[in-house]
Amino acid sequence: MQLNQASWPEIEAYLKKSKGIVIPIGSVEQHGPNGLLGTDAICPEVIAKEAGDEAGFLVGPTFSVGSAQHHLGFTGSITLRPTTMIAALNDWIDSLHRHGFKRIFFLNGHGGNITTIDAAFVESYAAWSLDGEACPYKLKQTSWWMFDEVAQVCKELFPEGDGSHATASEVAVTYYAYPEAVKDVVMTPKTAPEGRFTDAADYRKNFPDGRIGSDPSQATPEKGKRIVEVAKKALIREVEAYFAS
Amino acid sequence: MQLNQASWPEIEAYLKKSKGIVIPIGSVEQHGPNGLLGTDAICPEVIAKEAGDEAGFLVGPTFSVGSAQHHLGFTGSITLRPTTMIAALNDWIDSLHRHGFKRIFFLNGHGGNITTIDAAFVESYAAWSLDGEACPYKLKQTSWWMFDEVAQVCKELFPEGDGSHATASEVAVTYYAYPEAVKDVVMTPKTAPEGRFTDAADYRKNFPDGRIGSDPSQATPEKGKRIVEVAKKALIREVEAYFAS
Amino acid sequence: MQLNQASWPEIEAYLKKSKGIVIPIGSVEQHGPNGLLGTDAICPEVIAKEAGDEAGFLVGPTFSVGSAQHHLGFTGSITLRPTTMIAALNDWIDSLHRHGFKRIFFLNGHGGNITTIDAAFVESYAAWSLDGEACPYKLKQTSWWMFDEVAQVCKELFPEGDGSHATASEVAVTYYAYPEAVKDVVMTPKTAPEGRFTDAADYRKNFPDGRIGSDPSQATPEKGKRIVEVAKKALIREVEAYFAS
Amino acid sequence: MQLNQASWPEIEAYLKKSKGIVIPIGSVEQHGPNGLLGTDAICPEVIAKEAGDEAGFLVGPTFSVGSAQHHLGFTGSITLRPTTMIAALNDWIDSLHRHGFKRIFFLNGHGGNITTIDAAFVESYAAWSLDGEACPYKLKQTSWWMFDEVAQVCKELFPEGDGSHATASEVAVTYYAYPEAVKDVVMTPKTAPEGRFTDAADYRKNFPDGRIGSDPSQATPEKGKRIVEVAKKALIREVEAYFAS
Amino acid sequence: MQLNQASWPEIEAYLKKSKGIVIPIGSVEQHGPNGLLGTDAICPEVIAKEAGDEAGFLVGPTFSVGSAQHHLGFTGSITLRPTTMIAALNDWIDSLHRHGFKRIFFLNGHGGNITTIDAAFVESYAAWSLDGEACPYKLKQTSWWMFDEVAQVCKELFPEGDGSHATASEVAVTYYAYPEAVKDVVMTPKTAPEGRFTDAADYRKNFPDGRIGSDPSQATPEKGKRIVEVAKKALIREVEAYFAS
Amino acid sequence: MQLNQASWPEIEAYLKKSKGIVIPIGSVEQHGPNGLLGTDAICPEVIAKEAGDEAGFLVGPTFSVGSAQHHLGFTGSITLRPTTMIAALNDWIDSLHRHGFKRIFFLNGHGGNITTIDAAFVESYAAWSLDGEACPYKLKQTSWWMFDEVAQVCKELFPEGDGSHATASEVAVTYYAYPEAVKDVVMTPKTAPEGRFTDAADYRKNFPDGRIGSDPSQATPEKGKRIVEVAKKALIREVEAYFAS
Repeated sequence: MQLNQASWPEIEAYLKKSKGIVIPIGSVEQHGPNGLLGTDAICPEVIAKEAGDEAGFLVGPTFSVGSAQHHLGFTGSITLRPTTMIAALNDWIDSLHRHGFKRIFFLNGHGGNITTIDAAFVESYAAWSLDGEACPYKLKQTSWWMFDEVAQVCKELFPEGDGSHATASEVAVTYYAYPEAVKDVVMTPKTAPEGRFTDAADYRKNFPDGRIGSDPSQATPEKGKRIVEVAKKALIREVEAYFAS
Repeated sequence: MQLNQASWPEIEAYLKKSKGIVIPIGSVEQHGPNGLLGTDAICPEVIAKEAGDEAGFLVGPTFSVGSAQHHLGFTGSITLRPTTMIAALNDWIDSLHRHGFKRIFFLNGHGGNITTIDAAFVESYAAWSLDGEACPYKLKQTSWWMFDEVAQVCKELFPEGDGSHATASEVAVTYYAYPEAVKDVVMTPKTAPEGRFTDAADYRKNFPDGRIGSDPSQATPEKGKRIVEVAKKALIREVEAYFAS
Repeated sequence: MQLNQASWPEIEAYLKKSKGIVIPIGSVEQHGPNGLLGTDAICPEVIAKEAGDEAGFLVGPTFSVGSAQHHLGFTGSITLRPTTMIAALNDWIDSLHRHGFKRIFFLNGHGGNITTIDAAFVESYAAWSLDGEACPYKLKQTSWWMFDEVAQVCKELFPEGDGSHATASEVAVTYYAYPEAVKDVVMTPKTAPEGRFTDAADYRKNFPDGRIGSDPSQATPEKGKRIVEVAKKALIREVEAYFAS
Repeated sequence: MQLNQASWPEIEAYLKKSKGIVIPIGSVEQHGPNGLLGTDAICPEVIAKEAGDEAGFLVGPTFSVGSAQHHLGFTGSITLRPTTMIAALNDWIDSLHRHGFKRIFFLNGHGGNITTIDAAFVESYAAWSLDGEACPYKLKQTSWWMFDEVAQVCKELFPEGDGSHATASEVAVTYYAYPEAVKDVVMTPKTAPEGRFTDAADYRKNFPDGRIGSDPSQATPEKGKRIVEVAKKALIREVEAYFAS
Repeated sequence: MQLNQASWPEIEAYLKKSKGIVIPIGSVEQHGPNGLLGTDAICPEVIAKEAGDEAGFLVGPTFSVGSAQHHLGFTGSITLRPTTMIAALNDWIDSLHRHGFKRIFFLNGHGGNITTIDAAFVESYAAWSLDGEACPYKLKQTSWWMFDEVAQVCKELFPEGDGSHATASEVAVTYYAYPEAVKDVVMTPKTAPEGRFTDAADYRKNFPDGRIGSDPSQATPEKGKRIVEVAKKALIREVEAYFAS
Repeated sequence: MQLNQASWPEIEAYLKKSKGIVIPIGSVEQHGPNGLLGTDAICPEVIAKEAGDEAGFLVGPTFSVGSAQHHLGFTGSITLRPTTMIAALNDWIDSLHRHGFKRIFFLNGHGGNITTIDAAFVESYAAWSLDGEACPYKLKQTSWWMFDEVAQVCKELFPEGDGSHATASEVAVTYYAYPEAVKDVVMTPKTAPEGRFTDAADYRKNFPDGRIGSDPSQATPEKGKRIVEVAKKALIREVEAYFAS
């Protein structure tokens, strides 16, 4: 069930049977020579949508622009400052709490979001903890590639060059979602170097085409489909357990 | 051209021929008994996408959650506080400026966003004005229903009961975009009352099913298609003029 | 009744019969070659004062510096950033709410303030809407030149060259208020060009002496007096209706 | 010279001979049974105006609402939170700096403002100090009652019961400025108790009619005139020394 | 009793007999050629610790970095912006209030902190005053050198050249606390000039080695010990009176 | 070398040979029945001090209060909100950058700080990335218990019941640092349960005496000494590598 395509009476009916919602959260940032700028939003969005449709849980709007300062050396990347992101996430959380949601599960698509999402959760809880009242809701984030079975299928599909940014697996998921956007690009070098980074200038210097450790030319819509199938099942299991907790 | 489905080298190539981008901006809020919560994001998104595809200009990610505090009495609505929205819009603007964009055109889908978007523009310009430097970019917003020809076609399609919230025309556009989400609901009263509001409690008291002045049961995908065709042309004309200014 | 010249027991007595207050709100910014920097604060201040004295409603202190970044290319202009203005207006509103005021009517003197004042209202309402409580007060803004009869008298007095910034009518009102400040300046060109602007550099480039569309050399104290008389009556009517709503 | 009644070309001419400006800064807060809510803004405003007119220096708009949380137990008082006041003062300072002012002298009318004004100055300097650049302007505040000769004349006029809030001397200055607002109230007790306070509830409990240590029924317009004459001379001396520093 | 070396059950037991706590608050900033960067934190920390140990009151963690922008021209100085400091102090206050503390006594070691600490107190009280509730706690600050008997012993020990920054007395207290850090430096000139400052560049220009008015080469651990003994007694007296108020 | 006990000329001399600094960062929060509230600040402080003294690198002041909202159900715990902590860390970073430091290594003592520290780093880098300038400094955090050899020695010393909060190893380190603060408490149950938490109420409900998974009654000063020796060596190795990077 997609919140964006539901009416308010439909959400009101949903809330009578479940107090849980899943929010895909991504980033708009470069994903190398053949990856989409929207990759990190598209991946959790498609997985959450398929899972929600199958299992009947509610999927909220995608929080699409996240923490991507390190990618600003590549055209098209957009970032929120962490303090802005904390404020925005807290406005979303406060709105959902207003309606009575008690389990808010963020399905994350961007490694760079993890710490700021967690800081946003702490900001939210801190208001209750300082007031001395029990917070009536719980907040959780999971990144889709961290489900065990997803990690395994990605390893099977891409035994080499899945990498850590502009990964073959995430590009494959976006190709499955938007086959019309498949881009045929020769990678040089075939597999990008691994490494670390600080700001955008440092990132661009170390990773000239934007990839880290990956060969995303291996990505195909079919492989993406396979990943989404596995991820969908994992997400349903996790969400159902979380909503029941 | 959709930024989210482009790679960074594609955006870099685009910037060599144009410094302009269109950002759809919406809201997630109740739209009455048969309207979608995502209406205000969906409408500018579909219009901008079709226009961008036809005319070749770049369409950025949708800024989907906006200023909707007055709708919080209806389940599923999500709001940003204006100060959060100003911060987030400025982070987007700063990111786009970093890449060299010089004309940023927000195609708006929510009346309640207009003043805060403008305040965000002023916040952005103020930094340059206080520094005594000329701001290298220009910012513009237009709401899709304000194009003359769009207003006219909506009046033709819905001579009565287009209304001012959960309008027949906006619901029609979303039905065109998501025909699977068409909802068949009898409206009582057929046309909702007109009026004004302050906060969420006041809104809910005055407009019990969320509509203002509208009878959105008149909406059909076909009528939505017609509106989008007209809006697309208007947008192309406005965007081309703006990018050339 | 002027809050600034009243004692607290007098305000306490006033609150027993009315919960309404009028706040003049302006800007300190250039108003062309013969206009006063304080114009936008002076106009609503003098109108509100005369109306309040006649009708017995309470007029609060003038919120004198507003949103004027676009005028910073002209010496003497002072601006608040929109986020600062939202914070300050909310502190005023919270203070007045603390005392039990339930209708706060901002009489505005500056077009550039309108959107940020509205964003400030939304910020105020949002706190209640997110908490799920009904906001006990209502907020309203009207710009003095928007009253129908004021628009009409200005048109009669200045059939040409009233303009849209440093208007003949606003300069006239200030000359009525401060006849010792009348400045005799020849305008070149007689009527300034119309147009739009973004930041301060853009404004100054397009409007070299600060005026937009106006010939304020037509302003006289007598014409200002006439405008104030009309505006006073309009304001009394609006305020009484609003306080009774 | 009053900025609010000057045109921008007049300020531009002024800046060619002086880089200094005086800003009256006050508060809107209760001043006991016969004192005006606007007292703390009125006093520095009238002193600065008379001094500026005599000595030819520029007097900016009055920063009228300040730090008055402790008076909120008395109707009509309005406060800024300190963080809001710091933001607003910095916007004023940044605007004046933009125009080339190098000496900004705040003439203060409210003891409760002193620390927050100083914190605002530190916030302003800190931006330069952290950047490693020399700040091109200097900021100063003085409270009008702290000039030695003013303190002395107040002591002469009110050997007993001048007090520390709603003082006889400040009420006298406002009576001189607004003789039509003189209020004839019997004080009980004749002289209010001295003491300290924290928040508004604590203040109201300790000082039931708002006064601290004062008998302002001694205030007359004539005594106010005397104080203003002395304060005017002191201010001229201090301002001229400061602008020349 | 040191909070940092206590367990939570020990603090819980303490709160049954006292609702008061002392917080040393300092700065990390240059203190001239022979003074320690940590001087302003060390002095209140050692005095509070010895007093708390003797009298049995609770001493919280030291708020060690404060308002020191004017010292940034000297290597090693660290500052908070005033708005950051206000936010941090309010988080501390809110945490202590959560546990039931009702008297929070800041023992300050840095003149430059005084106004911002006061602004932080006002920010804290303002939340209660605007809500119309009585604040359940009281906040107080005293700078250790302001106790009468401390001022007197410093004058006895250093009849000349105690000064106003990098004072002989504060350096002596740190030498008593950290005798291994005593630095033997010849001062040129023997006594530094007095004066005022604005930002860091201005400070460094006027006071090239960081001292103001002092000859801290007079400092010895023995003199520091004497000062601490006197300060300890004064603090115990003040704290006991405050906690009992 | 301890910054707090150094003079500014000593830091200036240090900067000629190294641009690196280590900042211990902790939290003030409950650590179970026998653990110190200051544990998380004390551990990195003592390790950094001993390492800095041995290897000659500079150790800055301890950032002592961190992110501890979940512990507020236990008396004495103090927290910063994440947004406050981000602001404060950025003020520290900006100050150190002002002096020319290029490698800032935070040695962390609290798991709950990790994400907010990272968000603070991103906030700092984002300013440079958005400006399009290369950030001249690098920021790093490591938690002392994450060094491989430290993890191993803790496992050897406490094969069971080291746990994840109020761990035997951290309590041991504090007992080594403050042997006078050793507390003899019988733990019930001997080993606390493991689990997760959200806000303070949730934490207290799940972990009634504050411990998670630990039996800290095993802690002794001797074991703490052993841990510090190992950690010191690991830290020296990491810091030297980082400063040389």
